[in-house]
Amino acid sequence: MVNSIKRVLLGPPFPTSRAVHERLDKARALAVFASDPISSNAYATEAIMTVLVVLGTGHLGLTFPIAIAITVLIALVVFSYNQTIQHYPQGGGAYMVAKDNLGTNPSLVAGAALLTDYVLTVSVSVSAGIRAITSALHDVTWLTEHRVLLGLLVILVITWINLRGVRESGTIFAIPTYAFVVGVFAVIAIGLVRYYGLGGLEPMRPPALVGEAALPITGFAYMWLILRAFAAGCTALTGIEAISDGVSAFQRPEPRNAIITMRAMAVMATGLFLGISFLATHVGIVPVEGGESVLSQLTRTVAGPGPLYYWVQGFTMLILVLAANTGYQDFPRLSSFLARDGFLPRWMTNVGHRLVFSAGILTLTALASLTLVAFGGDEIRMLPLYAIGVFISFTVSQLGMVRLWGKIAALAPGETLDTGITTLHYEKGWQWRRLANLVGAITTFVVLIILAATKFLDGAWIIIVAIPAIVFLFKRIRGHYTTVSKNLRTRDLQPDQLRSVADVVVVPIADVHRGSLRAIKYALRLSKDVRVAYVVTDPAAEARLRQRWERWEAVTGAAKLVTIESQYREVIDPLVDYIEEVNEEFRDQLVTVVVPEFVPETLMSNFLHNQTAALLRIRLRAHEDIVIIDVPYHLERPKDDGAPAG
Amino acid sequence: MVNSIKRVLLGPPFPTSRAVHERLDKARALAVFASDPISSNAYATEAIMTVLVVLGTGHLGLTFPIAIAITVLIALVVFSYNQTIQHYPQGGGAYMVAKDNLGTNPSLVAGAALLTDYVLTVSVSVSAGIRAITSALHDVTWLTEHRVLLGLLVILVITWINLRGVRESGTIFAIPTYAFVVGVFAVIAIGLVRYYGLGGLEPMRPPALVGEAALPITGFAYMWLILRAFAAGCTALTGIEAISDGVSAFQRPEPRNAIITMRAMAVMATGLFLGISFLATHVGIVPVEGGESVLSQLTRTVAGPGPLYYWVQGFTMLILVLAANTGYQDFPRLSSFLARDGFLPRWMTNVGHRLVFSAGILTLTALASLTLVAFGGDEIRMLPLYAIGVFISFTVSQLGMVRLWGKIAALAPGETLDTGITTLHYEKGWQWRRLANLVGAITTFVVLIILAATKFLDGAWIIIVAIPAIVFLFKRIRGHYTTVSKNLRTRDLQPDQLRSVADVVVVPIADVHRGSLRAIKYALRLSKDVRVAYVVTDPAAEARLRQRWERWEAVTGAAKLVTIESQYREVIDPLVDYIEEVNEEFRDQLVTVVVPEFVPETLMSNFLHNQTAALLRIRLRAHEDIVIIDVPYHLERPKDDGAPAG
Repeated sequence: MVNSIKRVLLGPPFPTSRAVHERLDKARALAVFASDPISSNAYATEAIMTVLVVLGTGHLGLTFPIAIAITVLIALVVFSYNQTIQHYPQGGGAYMVAKDNLGTNPSLVAGAALLTDYVLTVSVSVSAGIRAITSALHDVTWLTEHRVLLGLLVILVITWINLRGVRESGTIFAIPTYAFVVGVFAVIAIGLVRYYGLGGLEPMRPPALVGEAALPITGFAYMWLILRAFAAGCTALTGIEAISDGVSAFQRPEPRNAIITMRAMAVMATGLFLGISFLATHVGIVPVEGGESVLSQLTRTVAGPGPLYYWVQGFTMLILVLAANTGYQDFPRLSSFLARDGFLPRWMTNVGHRLVFSAGILTLTALASLTLVAFGGDEIRMLPLYAIGVFISFTVSQLGMVRLWGKIAALAPGETLDTGITTLHYEKGWQWRRLANLVGAITTFVVLIILAATKFLDGAWIIIVAIPAIVFLFKRIRGHYTTVSKNLRTRDLQPDQLRSVADVVVVPIADVHRGSLRAIKYALRLSKDVRVAYVVTDPAAEARLRQRWERWEAVTGAAKLVTIESQYREVIDPLVDYIEEVNEEFRDQLVTVVVPEFVPETLMSNFLHNQTAALLRIRLRAHEDIVIIDVPYHLERPKDDGAPAG
Repeated sequence: MVNSIKRVLLGPPFPTSRAVHERLDKARALAVFASDPISSNAYATEAIMTVLVVLGTGHLGLTFPIAIAITVLIALVVFSYNQTIQHYPQGGGAYMVAKDNLGTNPSLVAGAALLTDYVLTVSVSVSAGIRAITSALHDVTWLTEHRVLLGLLVILVITWINLRGVRESGTIFAIPTYAFVVGVFAVIAIGLVRYYGLGGLEPMRPPALVGEAALPITGFAYMWLILRAFAAGCTALTGIEAISDGVSAFQRPEPRNAIITMRAMAVMATGLFLGISFLATHVGIVPVEGGESVLSQLTRTVAGPGPLYYWVQGFTMLILVLAANTGYQDFPRLSSFLARDGFLPRWMTNVGHRLVFSAGILTLTALASLTLVAFGGDEIRMLPLYAIGVFISFTVSQLGMVRLWGKIAALAPGETLDTGITTLHYEKGWQWRRLANLVGAITTFVVLIILAATKFLDGAWIIIVAIPAIVFLFKRIRGHYTTVSKNLRTRDLQPDQLRSVADVVVVPIADVHRGSLRAIKYALRLSKDVRVAYVVTDPAAEARLRQRWERWEAVTGAAKLVTIESQYREVIDPLVDYIEEVNEEFRDQLVTVVVPEFVPETLMSNFLHNQTAALLRIRLRAHEDIVIIDVPYHLERPKDDGAPAG
């Protein structure tokens, strides 16, 4: 039944052999991995301007230079990840680089940081998308009232699409992503043509609306604000690393395709970013807190309130929601890497019905839903927690690359080095690449500090506390698996160390009936020393039992009836005591207990029977030297006699 | 651990041999069984007066004649139950009489009626008690706000006392019961002396407060009101039957002691009732809806607001709460009788830790708590449901007695008749006893009709619907047990009909490790045909498995490795399919499956392992011909090496 529900919801299962056909071509891959970085353009420019406007509208002109600086940072990070993909073509991104070059702890920090960020990607972008939709449809108040419920529904839909397989979700997610990109590029093109060519591009809102800052800000405070504007714009970088994690999802040759896709994504995302930032400042758009978004103002100013305006607005909402999908791509993959190394439950490596990491997908859904509910679906309150994880992983991953270049530098041309994870050989130009990664590491670290410092009390502390806690959990889980494998390993085991089986069988019974006779008969096949244990709570019942016992001598003759007096009417305790006694008698050997178990026809009718067999099993599980045999006895329904005809 | 919690809460367990010492002497028995009928005096007179006052205060004088009529009815019912106790000394009351004389259906109706009424006894009296306390302490508003919670707490305390054993609860409940009786008798004595002797007994509230009825009520309507007043007063009868159910709780000779106690109870209860009714009307007390109770007014008028007033008020509250205990005495006993006959789960016959029917006590607690919550702790809304069950059982039981006298009449002197439940012999004077029971049956039936008719829409319909539903449930349960016993009975079973055991053992494994080797070794003791089933989801893992398999030839040599390809990465389904195939091969024989089961050290760490063994067991339970053997493998904690010294 579970299988048919799965089939209806998710479609027919994919055989393992199909995995290679489920790989993504570049166009689909760009859509599934890049929805987060591309959707950032809906708000990144505005994020910078909102900080700068504190200095007065005259300082909004700084937006474009800051956007250029961020573009340079993006270029550095993309360059770094291109190198990572080349050297770690199996995927795994920052986690794998750190593991190979910096050791376990940094890799776990990167892993924990990314996982928390992916959870936030989902809850933040779903909440932001819902907010965009509800403010567009602000007349329909019940939408706003049920934003948490709506958010949970959207998460469920995204979950469902992802569970149906990566290729199918790629197809579904491609349309809004490309539609958004095309729409915004059209706005930028029209804007540039009108700005340089036709002229007459006037801001529809007078720039004088916001004057100069009440107090002139100078010196350190001024620098700090510029840095904060820069840091705010850096949210555009979230999701850039996604492709490096999921290299294995690409068609062959995986690294090449992944790198091409990543570059295309970077060009698209930065093109949109620079275009929006350039036009917004040169047209004189002013951000309005809680009011119309910068992108909306820009679109309306440039293209008027026509079809293009509604196209961009509509797909902006959709892509904000779909940014969540980047989390759904990478959380399950990254957790499968961690699980393979024993830091997360092993079942997170299992590939599901449709060849995706279903357990990871469902775990992400659970965590993101919890986060959404905890923050009441308010992404403004979640934002201080967001992006910190990504910048931790940027920093760790680039530091790892710096180390990697060091190893490569030490190689002679033609020499190779197998690190256990990848194979390195000498590469020319390692010097400037290493420098680029070092600059990248320092820059992303500075952004990280700014993000954490400016938002610490607003919620960033939660992440600062959570990451070590998660790393601790990873290590506890790994510790458990290590203990298990030590216990189970056969390397130092001698065949004679395996427990031998005692020549005794205990059969606890409550009565002599078909079920218990069946169990006794089974027990007699196992051993000549069968001890049938009966707990006496009522002398009359004992007398009846003995009578039946004698009547069934044909079966019971070879067994021994052991009666145990129970003055406190307990049944389980005296049985366990007796079995422990037998276990003591056959020390260091496996004692077998045959439990006749009555299986009723419905779950409800379990309620009408003492759960002695189940309770006994639970109690005996604590004993390693006891083997439990369930001999089931099923209830046959009475024949339907006497049913009225016709 | 469960045992030590039990010990702390309930005290040391009582051995079965102590049962006879746990019997109740008459003084304690009166306290535990009579708390309900005696507590009725707190409100029975008022119930009559509240109806009569509709006719005008001038008609309140009818209270005393009605009280006398009710006293006669009480005498009839007590007489009837005395006969029942004599003829059914094992207890069981109305249920047993109906079963022996009227057949199964009437006995189940009586049983269902009484059980619902006992549940209501608990929830109504606890709610009434809480209301009495909260209106006395009306300044402490949080008490009133949390009346449901308080009620649940009180139920828990009563449950706890009852679970500690009947003798102990008898001791605890005796004090407030006797204190109430003594207090109210003192009030009556002083009142009579002042009324007839000293004079000067004036009502403290002018009787003119309530005038004549707005419209004079005459004819049928008048008769109906008088009948309703009579029916209202009949709530004083609830709980009278309790002793007849619990005859077996008395010291020897049980029937004699029970009858004496019942008569003492009747004298006490009717004495209080007549005394209060006489004084209340002769002193001119007028009931005030929602105001001071009649008993409180009377006490204050007769004895002044001194220590006696507070004594009576305090113990009234306590005894209202303790009336619940009558339910706790009889519900568990009656359900044990029904369970013994297979109409309720068999475990309700089990005698617990302290020789009481613990399961029945806890069931009553659950049902009464649910009722209390459902009605928001408001006994006024529960009252229409109350007392109907008791009057059904009165009617059924007295009809049963009429039949019994018929059987006795048919016997010749010296002749005996064994009904299977009791032994009858000829008795003189059966004619007038039979007449008394017939009059009793008719009267209680009339009261039942009045109760049901006047309160039908207020909630009595719930009971009218519930009783047939409960009877249906009883029969379903009995049907299940009948099917089970038919299935298990050995009478028509031939030894060769017992399934033989197939000479094959299947061992599903996930890897070759200490746990699975242990299981394989165990399996090899059972059969020469051991098939080790391994589901292949990953060719690399299979290769590793085969390598280990060969390395462990010393153990695995005699077994056969069966690999099952699973292209959809499912493990359970292919295993079940394979086991079913083997089962088919050995048709009509028991196939044995040995499951190596890894038992982690903590419950939480179960989360880190696939629950394959548990899921497999659940799936295979559906097959009657499959015997499952759990070979446990426990995790040893790693040695504490490297712990820093000092």
